Amino acid sequence: MSAIVPDGATLRRELAGLCAASTDDERREAYARAAWSTLVEPGDGTAGSLVAALGAERALEVALSVRAPRPVGEITVQQLTAGRDRWNPRRDRVADAMERARKAGVRLLTPADADWPARSADLGPHAPLCLWTRGDRGLLSIPAPALALVGARASTTYGDFVAAELAAESAAAGVTVVSGGAYGIDGAAHRAAVAAGGATVAIMAGGVDRAYPAGHRDLIERIVREGLVVAEVPCGTTPTKFRFLARNRLIAALSDATVVVEAGWRSGAHNTAHHAQMIGRPVGVVPGPVTSAASMGCHRLLRESDATCVTTFAEVRELIGHAGSLEGSGRGDPGARDDEYTGDRTRILDALSARSPRTVADVARRAGFGFGEAAGLLGMLELDGAARRRGDEWIQASPAPPATLW
Amino acid sequence: MSAIVPDGATLRRELAGLCAASTDDERREAYARAAWSTLVEPGDGTAGSLVAALGAERALEVALSVRAPRPVGEITVQQLTAGRDRWNPRRDRVADAMERARKAGVRLLTPADADWPARSADLGPHAPLCLWTRGDRGLLSIPAPALALVGARASTTYGDFVAAELAAESAAAGVTVVSGGAYGIDGAAHRAAVAAGGATVAIMAGGVDRAYPAGHRDLIERIVREGLVVAEVPCGTTPTKFRFLARNRLIAALSDATVVVEAGWRSGAHNTAHHAQMIGRPVGVVPGPVTSAASMGCHRLLRESDATCVTTFAEVRELIGHAGSLEGSGRGDPGARDDEYTGDRTRILDALSARSPRTVADVARRAGFGFGEAAGLLGMLELDGAARRRGDEWIQASPAPPATLW
Repeated sequence: MSAIVPDGATLRRELAGLCAASTDDERREAYARAAWSTLVEPGDGTAGSLVAALGAERALEVALSVRAPRPVGEITVQQLTAGRDRWNPRRDRVADAMERARKAGVRLLTPADADWPARSADLGPHAPLCLWTRGDRGLLSIPAPALALVGARASTTYGDFVAAELAAESAAAGVTVVSGGAYGIDGAAHRAAVAAGGATVAIMAGGVDRAYPAGHRDLIERIVREGLVVAEVPCGTTPTKFRFLARNRLIAALSDATVVVEAGWRSGAHNTAHHAQMIGRPVGVVPGPVTSAASMGCHRLLRESDATCVTTFAEVRELIGHAGSLEGSGRGDPGARDDEYTGDRTRILDALSARSPRTVADVARRAGFGFGEAAGLLGMLELDGAARRRGDEWIQASPAPPATLW
Repeated sequence: MSAIVPDGATLRRELAGLCAASTDDERREAYARAAWSTLVEPGDGTAGSLVAALGAERALEVALSVRAPRPVGEITVQQLTAGRDRWNPRRDRVADAMERARKAGVRLLTPADADWPARSADLGPHAPLCLWTRGDRGLLSIPAPALALVGARASTTYGDFVAAELAAESAAAGVTVVSGGAYGIDGAAHRAAVAAGGATVAIMAGGVDRAYPAGHRDLIERIVREGLVVAEVPCGTTPTKFRFLARNRLIAALSDATVVVEAGWRSGAHNTAHHAQMIGRPVGVVPGPVTSAASMGCHRLLRESDATCVTTFAEVRELIGHAGSLEGSGRGDPGARDDEYTGDRTRILDALSARSPRTVADVARRAGFGFGEAAGLLGMLELDGAARRRGDEWIQASPAPPATLW
């Protein structure tokens, strides 16, 4: 029992409505991860390694102990001492964070949850320790493909238009649109995804209990109702420059591919693209007029990185397709995941007809999947060109048609 | 003595004012090459190999002989027989071509001329056998750097603007602007180069005695007066689809780098870019809005080839720089050329001061070069960042400044 994690009735009361944990052990671990998120800045590698090595609660005890630290696995005494210096001053924050989360109807997501985004594991010790969410938590789970659409806050009409088109086509193809909720390209992408009835995830640099930017309060509330708003920092946390950069790594990590629509010469979107490339995710770049400052960062990426020039959704889909075929590479047991996907895929294909369109509910029932699971798999098959949507129904299809232009 | 090349007084009369040959042997060879250009379609590899193996006049005898052909070097009997079938029907064209050339004030350029573009050798047996020129023949000779600026006939205001900017900056930097004289991007590039007082070369698909397109008559006449108009086909030849494609290879071969400004999905500029890549010349592509059909070919090149995204003249200059450092690779004696250039470069640098600006005439006199030669070398040094222009004068400079933006 640590000094931070309460027990028994207190623990249950603290977590009531906050998370899906069903046993006291699960609750203790979830609470400890929530506590960790109040101690660290995002991406704290020492914290991540410590939690991976000991579990969150035991790691918390070691982290906040007054006894002289001893090495834990590959974590050195020096790292632990430095960590304690960072973490200890924040040890009183957890209760407030929990209180704010409960008031705002926020849900806590940890790796123990079925909805936890497996993609985040590619960040290694820099992966988030937990996620604070508002909305449909299932949107981040595999196999539904996810596309990060990011770009300049100071976007142009051109950039907004392209972002909206790509987001709307993503929505139509069953691809979740991930972005940062900011003005400009982010907002255009979220808005178009929501308007098209698609799934969209806004990843915040500050707590999910407050809208940032304030001018996007209505948009963010709409994403809460029809999509998902996520942060790794707890409620009450203000966004800082560092947290914006850390948030960018999360946008990249929670998506199969990242597409930069417009970006200034030194842009946050540029930063997101580099994060994506660092963890081996494909990056697409939408070119623009060379006379437009809002496209300079895009052209810079085309010149200086191995980002791919993308001009249509068909080309973006190709990018996601590559990620799909590579996506096992960074994870624990790629073979198992691939087989699982192949098996699931076959079950869905068996449930589809080449002639009679069937509803998602019908396909789910025939294949023995839940509705959401079937919808996600159908989206994947559509990306592969193996299934095609007709209105609200689905049929088997021959391979993908050639790229379409605007 | 062949059936086609006349001798003595007739030969001298035929070539009077047409070419720089000073001996009867040189005249016979020049006349034979002119005759060859009336027999072949551009890029005829059998003709090129035959002329390379035997010299133009002897090759002409073999080509038009009625005796059974024998292999010549690696040229097979079958190739020669097929060649004769192509060439013989045109054996009466040469007199007319000469007559038209004399009337139009056209000059014949052959590899024996000092002004012959050494760059064309990279085309191997597909190099032009001679060039018919109007204007300043010296513009094609090394070391003056040359940039092909090509693109869509159906260009947009955006494309015209970018082409004009790049051409004007090329002119200011002493880079010769090469293009095809067509509507759209070609015209914008030529016009801006001429307006900026720079050197420009229009390479025609038909004879240089007629303006094509007719709507560019005034522009082409202006290029004749202030630049150079060139074709490998003789006067009186109409442009055909094949000759446009062959002309594109010549645009690429006579330039150090090719930049495509705007291009439709299936564009001639695309074809020029492929020619450039085939002979190892760098290709730059100016991106544009993905919503613009006029940029589709550009984005396609960025996706499907190893073309470089270029957005400023500084980036184009870098491309030419790469070509400069590589330019010996495809030629006969790269070492000699490099040394020669290094020596010339040193002589010019010795003639420049880091403090007192000097005129080109002054630098030429101090270095012992002709005016045009010195101007060309100064242009090269400016590209390298070793010399800088101040009004009409030049000084030594430190290395190139960082890329400038629009």
